[in-house]
Amino acid sequence: MTRNETNRSRSSNSNSEKSGGGGTTAMRVIVPLQGVVQGRGGLFLGSVIPCAFFYFLQFYLKRNRKNESDSGEENPAASSPNSDSNPDSLDPTRSQSAGHLTELTGLPRSLSRILLSPRNSGGAVSVSGRVNSVTKGGDSPYYVGQKRIEEDPYDESSNPDGVIELGLAQNNKLSLNDWNLENPEETISDGLNISGIASYEPSHGLMELKVAVAGFMSEATKNSVSFDPSQLVLTSGASSAMEILSFCLADAGNAFLVPTPCSPGYDRDVKWRTGVEIIHVPCRSADGFKISMLVLDRAFYQAKKRGVRIRGIVISNPSNPMGSLLSRESLYAILDFARERNIHVISNEIFACSVHGEEEGEGGGEFVSMVEIVDTEENMDRERVHIIYDLSKDLSFPGLGTAAIYSFNETVVSGARKLTTLSPVSSPSQHLLISAISNPKFVQGLVRTSRQRLQRIYQELVKGLRELGIDCTRSNGGFFCWVDMRGLMSSYSEKGEVELWNKLLSIGKINVIPGSCCHCIEPGWFRFCFSNLSESDVPVVVNRIRKVCETCKSQN
Amino acid sequence: MTRNETNRSRSSNSNSEKSGGGGTTAMRVIVPLQGVVQGRGGLFLGSVIPCAFFYFLQFYLKRNRKNESDSGEENPAASSPNSDSNPDSLDPTRSQSAGHLTELTGLPRSLSRILLSPRNSGGAVSVSGRVNSVTKGGDSPYYVGQKRIEEDPYDESSNPDGVIELGLAQNNKLSLNDWNLENPEETISDGLNISGIASYEPSHGLMELKVAVAGFMSEATKNSVSFDPSQLVLTSGASSAMEILSFCLADAGNAFLVPTPCSPGYDRDVKWRTGVEIIHVPCRSADGFKISMLVLDRAFYQAKKRGVRIRGIVISNPSNPMGSLLSRESLYAILDFARERNIHVISNEIFACSVHGEEEGEGGGEFVSMVEIVDTEENMDRERVHIIYDLSKDLSFPGLGTAAIYSFNETVVSGARKLTTLSPVSSPSQHLLISAISNPKFVQGLVRTSRQRLQRIYQELVKGLRELGIDCTRSNGGFFCWVDMRGLMSSYSEKGEVELWNKLLSIGKINVIPGSCCHCIEPGWFRFCFSNLSESDVPVVVNRIRKVCETCKSQN
Repeated sequence: MTRNETNRSRSSNSNSEKSGGGGTTAMRVIVPLQGVVQGRGGLFLGSVIPCAFFYFLQFYLKRNRKNESDSGEENPAASSPNSDSNPDSLDPTRSQSAGHLTELTGLPRSLSRILLSPRNSGGAVSVSGRVNSVTKGGDSPYYVGQKRIEEDPYDESSNPDGVIELGLAQNNKLSLNDWNLENPEETISDGLNISGIASYEPSHGLMELKVAVAGFMSEATKNSVSFDPSQLVLTSGASSAMEILSFCLADAGNAFLVPTPCSPGYDRDVKWRTGVEIIHVPCRSADGFKISMLVLDRAFYQAKKRGVRIRGIVISNPSNPMGSLLSRESLYAILDFARERNIHVISNEIFACSVHGEEEGEGGGEFVSMVEIVDTEENMDRERVHIIYDLSKDLSFPGLGTAAIYSFNETVVSGARKLTTLSPVSSPSQHLLISAISNPKFVQGLVRTSRQRLQRIYQELVKGLRELGIDCTRSNGGFFCWVDMRGLMSSYSEKGEVELWNKLLSIGKINVIPGSCCHCIEPGWFRFCFSNLSESDVPVVVNRIRKVCETCKSQN
Repeated sequence: MTRNETNRSRSSNSNSEKSGGGGTTAMRVIVPLQGVVQGRGGLFLGSVIPCAFFYFLQFYLKRNRKNESDSGEENPAASSPNSDSNPDSLDPTRSQSAGHLTELTGLPRSLSRILLSPRNSGGAVSVSGRVNSVTKGGDSPYYVGQKRIEEDPYDESSNPDGVIELGLAQNNKLSLNDWNLENPEETISDGLNISGIASYEPSHGLMELKVAVAGFMSEATKNSVSFDPSQLVLTSGASSAMEILSFCLADAGNAFLVPTPCSPGYDRDVKWRTGVEIIHVPCRSADGFKISMLVLDRAFYQAKKRGVRIRGIVISNPSNPMGSLLSRESLYAILDFARERNIHVISNEIFACSVHGEEEGEGGGEFVSMVEIVDTEENMDRERVHIIYDLSKDLSFPGLGTAAIYSFNETVVSGARKLTTLSPVSSPSQHLLISAISNPKFVQGLVRTSRQRLQRIYQELVKGLRELGIDCTRSNGGFFCWVDMRGLMSSYSEKGEVELWNKLLSIGKINVIPGSCCHCIEPGWFRFCFSNLSESDVPVVVNRIRKVCETCKSQN
């Protein structure tokens, strides 16, 4: 198409838009085609030729409009001198058809410096659209609660009226009370000296640490699985492990299926930087919040219909926020589903060593890693299975920032290693961890102590809540109880849930996570992270909730 | 559009495609329109109606084709039973027009389990396109050299024939020799105890550390600038600082202008995960590799023409790989350029404290931070200026993984704080750094010692190279010399450069970075990171290069 034709079609469109149904101006443009239309092709060519014509016209206008809006964002004071001296430089479509104008765009330095006075600075510079959406999320209960904790944290002796943290998933009371007394810090910092810290080390972890981590992960499965250290990639936390896996398994615009309620962190870890979408697959209280294969199947096909490509399913075991363990049967079903749909499985096992339930009975406290399931399957295509493990959780070392990806997929391992440059494990953390977890006897003792502590606190808290008429689903792993507070809401809605959460924070002075942050579709459920508590804290928490219950009952 | 119409238009299209220009089948479809066309609107309606018709048809086919290719990627063995029992479930367009079929897509669990045998697993699961491109980069000299160093690292006593590292930007000889002797590790690890490590700390840095870092950055500018700790965001390294800024300042598909030669890491840090593009703006040896405002201007408008939105310019000062300092005049010019085009400035100042040149004379060794330039400007819109600072470089603490973003833009600071959850500074690093850099006297001594050492090694190496007839550009900051080895190449091309790099690695056993990795458009330049060397290493390196020179001369 020559330049003249383009210009002509541009004017014909704007005119026909103005003249509406009249068509007189459009007629004038189409007249040259009359001979062709009436001569040979008849109605067929009379359709195809104008069709092509209008099609390219729309295409041209679309491009044109896009570039006009782009240039509008630039500093107008700065761009005008240039566009005056060279009007073509701001019109990419025209310049494309007249390539010989290109060399005019770079102005001589002196001219440019005179014309463009730095004092004439225009409007404020804009940031990316995506950072705006990241910062706007600041008013969600998740971040509001965190801020309140920072401002006014509870301390039994120094600030007994402060806000008690039941939101953040940490287990720090273990190390401060139990572990620290038994293991003087000299043992831990043995491996720490300046030469160890000073030099570069692989950002994906020293082999010595990987061997120790593989041993520790085996310990979590009671040695029913042995992990190959060469399949491990260490990174600065479970969040970055999830981000790296999202990047490696899915392209921007692809999606993962995530059964809900789920970890509130996935919105950040999976979506923010990688552009991968999450399709929530709701589980319901009537089914004990178990994953339904029927609902998974439906979500898969509905996404497909919308043209969204599903690349994987993300599960957490022990589950976050319910604290339940997935049975062998469920794990087989999920793996089968993934094979049938040819998608990946990301199994988030960051609380693998924090199993605190009784082993006997239905749904007992046995943790089964997805790796064990894969190991028992013959002819299994293991490349689809990826595990996330976090040393900071079970070891109550959140500040160390050390998590692991364990994958059977060579490309994923190789890609993830390179990506850890962007979120490396620090050298002091590596050396501290090597000296802390290389001793199996110490690790076994630590795990036992931690489990006993979690069990005690869990049982005390559940008992206390039950006395207030508040039930929890059965938890046997991880740091959470999943608390049913539907009876305390003023209305059965998300608004009612936020109101109750607000009362818990302002009247009860406890920070918990409302179910909406976990994408639970039923309002009135709350995640209590009980591992934050010492035994003496439990009655304080129960008393504070009693106060909230009384307020709610007097208002209802 | 009803279902019948959709089906009809689908068949009409495939037929008309087959019958080419004949149009008999197409005629049959268009016949019902004949009355309308010939009746009232004449030629105008005869154009518009078929036009709209063909337009929607194209649109329909485009969608249809896309979904067909998607389903092709799914496991065929698994999907076929479902598509047999419910043929509509794989045709999204049809199902959209017949919404009542939706409920059929989720098969009952038992049926699904029988039909979909897990033994019938199909082809291997695919990973994302982007991780494939990340892993494919493994054969670049940058990664090949790193691998050789891992396999066979030089050590004066234990492996004197190993490969000498002149590629990686580290300064570890400082801490091992100079610093460690003067400062027994007890001083450093004073602040390190288990309780400090065990609990969560802000991933963007403790305020105590930010105050110390702000003081250290002021030290780098000889206290001509004071930094506000609340504008600092700490993260796990300069790479993640650059990634976070890229995310915050530009959306995917936007671009930064980067004068070249530049740091080889930008391809990873800016592009990989954020999807931001880099537009290289070449600097030439004839101009002493100085940034030309004319070329910058031209690059800006050429990008604009292609519809690419430029969001910022990235500079490094002291420059990487040249090791030169940017003059006040250049910094003003860059800031003016950014204001005129209403874009951001990212000033990478990770070697700010490693200035080793003489202060006197033209282009002398005075480091000027972009923050100082901003401070001297009245009515300056500071929101566009962002600094990257790396504590690991100047302090030769690479393993600590601690870098800083300093920004005047509130949204960027707030967004970056949240993003550090994905690349946090570890607690041990924070505590080690607080105790290491809170003492100004210690910091001053460290900086002085480091500068003297860098100066000695640089002068020795440049002298040695000059004796071999090899010149370098003048460096006065950072860890690099920028070495002109054009005379040794067998051919003046990128191929000749890679051949020479290969000889340096295999014959000379030194790992350096070829200019192509730094996007230098002139072949034959190499980056030597001399800070890796101790004084006794310099003659070894010079001798090895002499060997390479002799080989080259005998071959040419």
